[in-house]
Amino acid sequence: MSGAGDTAAPLGGFFGLELPDTGAGLWAHWGAARGLAFANATSALAALVRRAAPGAVWFPGFVCAEFTHAVPEGQRRYYAVDEDLGPEAGTLDPAPGDIVVGVNYFGRAAGAAGAAWRARVAAHPRVTFVEDCAQALDTGVAPWGQWRLYSPRKLAGIPDGGLLVPMDGAGGRQVLPPAPEAPPVEAVQAALAAKLARMEHPLDNALWHPMNQAHEAAHAVSGQGMSTLSRRLMGLIDVAAVSARRHENYRVLAEALAPWSVLADPDPAFVPFGFPVRLAPGQRDRVAQALYGQGIFPAVHWRDLPGVPSARDRARAESWLTLPCDQRWSVDDMARMARAFAGAAA
Amino acid sequence: MSGAGDTAAPLGGFFGLELPDTGAGLWAHWGAARGLAFANATSALAALVRRAAPGAVWFPGFVCAEFTHAVPEGQRRYYAVDEDLGPEAGTLDPAPGDIVVGVNYFGRAAGAAGAAWRARVAAHPRVTFVEDCAQALDTGVAPWGQWRLYSPRKLAGIPDGGLLVPMDGAGGRQVLPPAPEAPPVEAVQAALAAKLARMEHPLDNALWHPMNQAHEAAHAVSGQGMSTLSRRLMGLIDVAAVSARRHENYRVLAEALAPWSVLADPDPAFVPFGFPVRLAPGQRDRVAQALYGQGIFPAVHWRDLPGVPSARDRARAESWLTLPCDQRWSVDDMARMARAFAGAAA
Repeated sequence: MSGAGDTAAPLGGFFGLELPDTGAGLWAHWGAARGLAFANATSALAALVRRAAPGAVWFPGFVCAEFTHAVPEGQRRYYAVDEDLGPEAGTLDPAPGDIVVGVNYFGRAAGAAGAAWRARVAAHPRVTFVEDCAQALDTGVAPWGQWRLYSPRKLAGIPDGGLLVPMDGAGGRQVLPPAPEAPPVEAVQAALAAKLARMEHPLDNALWHPMNQAHEAAHAVSGQGMSTLSRRLMGLIDVAAVSARRHENYRVLAEALAPWSVLADPDPAFVPFGFPVRLAPGQRDRVAQALYGQGIFPAVHWRDLPGVPSARDRARAESWLTLPCDQRWSVDDMARMARAFAGAAA
Repeated sequence: MSGAGDTAAPLGGFFGLELPDTGAGLWAHWGAARGLAFANATSALAALVRRAAPGAVWFPGFVCAEFTHAVPEGQRRYYAVDEDLGPEAGTLDPAPGDIVVGVNYFGRAAGAAGAAWRARVAAHPRVTFVEDCAQALDTGVAPWGQWRLYSPRKLAGIPDGGLLVPMDGAGGRQVLPPAPEAPPVEAVQAALAAKLARMEHPLDNALWHPMNQAHEAAHAVSGQGMSTLSRRLMGLIDVAAVSARRHENYRVLAEALAPWSVLADPDPAFVPFGFPVRLAPGQRDRVAQALYGQGIFPAVHWRDLPGVPSARDRARAESWLTLPCDQRWSVDDMARMARAFAGAAA
């Protein structure tokens, strides 16, 4: 190392942020080291599409419209989503070389152990299947696609990141697209701002809510990578504890709100994203407003659907609500929310 | 909890930053929960002085001038620092009710096991003694003062914080000043910016060095508290690992650079802050520049001394240099630095 001179890493001076680099936690659970970490999942999908150069990319009609911006408009195709949240027969017809994106809604792979997808994958050996795991910390079953997309910020307090991970067991070795570039520090600060504000001032909704809205609106497809900050934070997530807390919370909601439940199983093997409920037509936004007024913030999946959705997909987007059951909340929080929901929906 | 309404914590919505809240690590090691956590140590001392309303506050002449701004100018008194880095006989003469600040230089309590200070404390039962532990992760001996001040950002990659911790064993129960207020998120962002930049782009000195300079210049006495971010990061510091790494690194430097060493013990019981070296008069800045040119950034303690320093204190400030030996660096880094130093100092 003698004469390392200008090219060696700086030695001394003020400390950079000191955050353990465990390589464990959620980072290890998702096998992220085998894949690529982009700034967001839309960018990760865009990189895969650029490399694979498919004829078309198939999306479900029930999905976040912004996610489809990973693909040039002319290449987008849509299929309808059936009652079990799998692809509806007759609407998904990929040609060889196409890519099909399927969503593991609310954390669950459609069909018994993902059977709804496995049949499609077997029937289309020259099509690439991508599992969108934005809502799936762990589906509890083997992967059905050749790739998985993960979006840690949907499941935990991670500022940025969208992971593209090859599933070696399901179709042989995949070729990774080119790696993304390290993000500029301003991008990391922007992704962090609202989350930092919420951690520092947890009760000050008026501080962090607008910060988050502004940042969510700024998401874009880019060749930027995930931050080191987010990677290390993922390494600190206790996956077993998070999963246990989500399961326990979900059971409280499944018991209290069974008449509204979208999903049949009150104690599923997959790690639940949230507890989706189905309301009467026209009732959803009224109930959501009533809950907001009590400081309860369920999510709507999704206010903006892409393409021309089927009647069923449109109905979901208009009448479903996803109640939170994540690791931040206790069973007491769940009981309070269940009472508030039942009161508002009555 | 029924009817909690607007006053309950918000439930759901986007995630705040997810960082384990262990209450362990450096936070526990310093007993921080028994004390108060301000934005910086100067503010912590200022709060103590405001509550205690002493006639005078005694500082060593060899100290960072900015630190003395915790106290109104008219109340400041200075004593000289002797060859062993304890108070020089005849220069420290506190009256009852005064406060004396003593620095555990480079991590070490002066005298055998802090004896230089214990004798003073015993001789002045009506004087309050404050140990400045800005450089002391662990002195390896029992506290000698009634209070300790800690400054985590001097010892680890923590964005902000200055802790005031009562030492119950050394003078009975202390009364804490009023607690500081939660810092605005802008202050946390400002404290974090350069550290985040250095973590994200570790080789890009031209990015983070000016960011750090700008922030250091902005430090001020305030009633703001330490951030939640910094508190949680402290909880993640592995004190045993950090201490072991610092000891191992220090031994490499003590062996290679013995002729320049300020401290006698090549393998001390205290956790070393750095490895201070003594150069010939007029040589220090030339050596520092030569090291900067090789990407090695030793520290100068201190470019600005307060008051009218003794000849010995002035000589230290002009001819000493502190080489880093902290947890970021390996023994190979130490060997490289030792070679560079010996070459520049020859």
